[in-house]
Amino acid sequence: MTDFDVTEYFEHRRVQVNAALDAALAQSEDDPGRLREAMRYAVLDGGKRMRPLLVVAACEAVGGSVEAALPAACAIEMVHAYSLVHDDLPAMDDDVERRGKPTVHVAFGDANAILVGDALLTHAFTTLASGATAAPDGRLLQAVVSLAHHSGIDGMVGGQALDLQVGQDVDDLAMLERVHALKTGGLYAASGAMGALSGGAQDEVAARLEAFGLAFGIAFQHADDVLDDDQPALREKALGRVDELTANCLDQVASLGEAAEPLRGIARWVAHRAHAAHRGEIKD
Amino acid sequence: MTDFDVTEYFEHRRVQVNAALDAALAQSEDDPGRLREAMRYAVLDGGKRMRPLLVVAACEAVGGSVEAALPAACAIEMVHAYSLVHDDLPAMDDDVERRGKPTVHVAFGDANAILVGDALLTHAFTTLASGATAAPDGRLLQAVVSLAHHSGIDGMVGGQALDLQVGQDVDDLAMLERVHALKTGGLYAASGAMGALSGGAQDEVAARLEAFGLAFGIAFQHADDVLDDDQPALREKALGRVDELTANCLDQVASLGEAAEPLRGIARWVAHRAHAAHRGEIKD
Repeated sequence: MTDFDVTEYFEHRRVQVNAALDAALAQSEDDPGRLREAMRYAVLDGGKRMRPLLVVAACEAVGGSVEAALPAACAIEMVHAYSLVHDDLPAMDDDVERRGKPTVHVAFGDANAILVGDALLTHAFTTLASGATAAPDGRLLQAVVSLAHHSGIDGMVGGQALDLQVGQDVDDLAMLERVHALKTGGLYAASGAMGALSGGAQDEVAARLEAFGLAFGIAFQHADDVLDDDQPALREKALGRVDELTANCLDQVASLGEAAEPLRGIARWVAHRAHAAHRGEIKD
Repeated sequence: MTDFDVTEYFEHRRVQVNAALDAALAQSEDDPGRLREAMRYAVLDGGKRMRPLLVVAACEAVGGSVEAALPAACAIEMVHAYSLVHDDLPAMDDDVERRGKPTVHVAFGDANAILVGDALLTHAFTTLASGATAAPDGRLLQAVVSLAHHSGIDGMVGGQALDLQVGQDVDDLAMLERVHALKTGGLYAASGAMGALSGGAQDEVAARLEAFGLAFGIAFQHADDVLDDDQPALREKALGRVDELTANCLDQVASLGEAAEPLRGIARWVAHRAHAAHRGEIKD
């Protein structure tokens, strides 16, 4: 499968994910506080859609269809978007701009931004649990458990709390990886698991794709760390970990055949990106 | 069943709900930012547990056990608690005290209060979807849909946005009821539906208990309005609506036999409370 065009695959799937997100966040004439408008503002028009693309690729890797993956794909992007809206608040990171636009609280006010985040997190579960997929109810219920587990106190939110506690200047790779595993890895782990479950996979396969997602998410963050010129010692170590994590990713999907080629493609792409950054070919 | 002791029933169930909440919010040595401690602070030691008690009573009304209802009962209380934590934030109502204690943001800081709310909302779905109940997966998945629907943009959060927009001094009963139906009624509707679904009820019965919950929640809020001395005209109208809504509650459970006596009991209790308030026997 050396001819497989990863870029083309993901470009095409991204268009489908964006259309599904647009449909899942319907506008309405009746929109007190412009909350629906703000939800669309927070989610649409921007973002690489890495997590939902992982959901789709994981679903296709186990023989599911793109359509079966879309409810979970939309759900994970809504969770990601809500976390950014709340992170940007004055009481948190106090960021005024994101993706070249004013942040939600700047555009819609602080109170509405809190409600928009709450509404997006909740709507993720509506979208996932009521989405039409061919997967049996038991698989979909497992997907709900995975999304909630990896988004909450034992996942992303726990990672945000840890991150607030340890501060910005961590130079210990193990601690950095613990933060990455929770704060970033959680949603990628849920993406792998939910994609597999939406495709009807059994627990063992879903666990492998969850592990793929976790390793991928951590590698993705370490690849960013490689770009950090201020910490040369950390850069070397981070590059080594990216290679290990990429190997782990490929190992998790070794038994899945050609349908897992997109997953192998994005895993290799992260390693490629980290090495290019290390050689100075990519600047932050 | 005139001998049925509603007060004793709910006292006993409240003890079971509180024990389940304590278990569902486990403390841990590893607690960055004291987030787990703050989640317990926000939920335990206080509150009438009206919503979880409705879940339990609805589950028992359809022949389910108390144990089957506890995951959904804990979930709805976590959603209620998260909404209070976020409502109390300086960017929202800016309240410094609740139930005789400092609010979460006063005790743990604004950033942590945002995360605590997010973590509680997410943990509600973990608790509901991974809770051991005898209900089939399909029923539990419907319960997830109900919780998410009534908590989000088409329910509680939508009601909060509407409330922010129309302001404090609404004297139009229809508008007031619209706010109550979304902001308060949503979680009560979800309580009725989730209780029934946890007990394995079919869609039609679940819909009746959802309608019971909605009418009950609105009546409960109107009963509070009756206490509002500043608006005598509104008080009369609100009392009339409480009676209508109570009749609607009793109608929804007319076919359910003796197992629904606790539900009939709390519906009558709200009407009784409203009339006592109107006669001046209860002061706010």
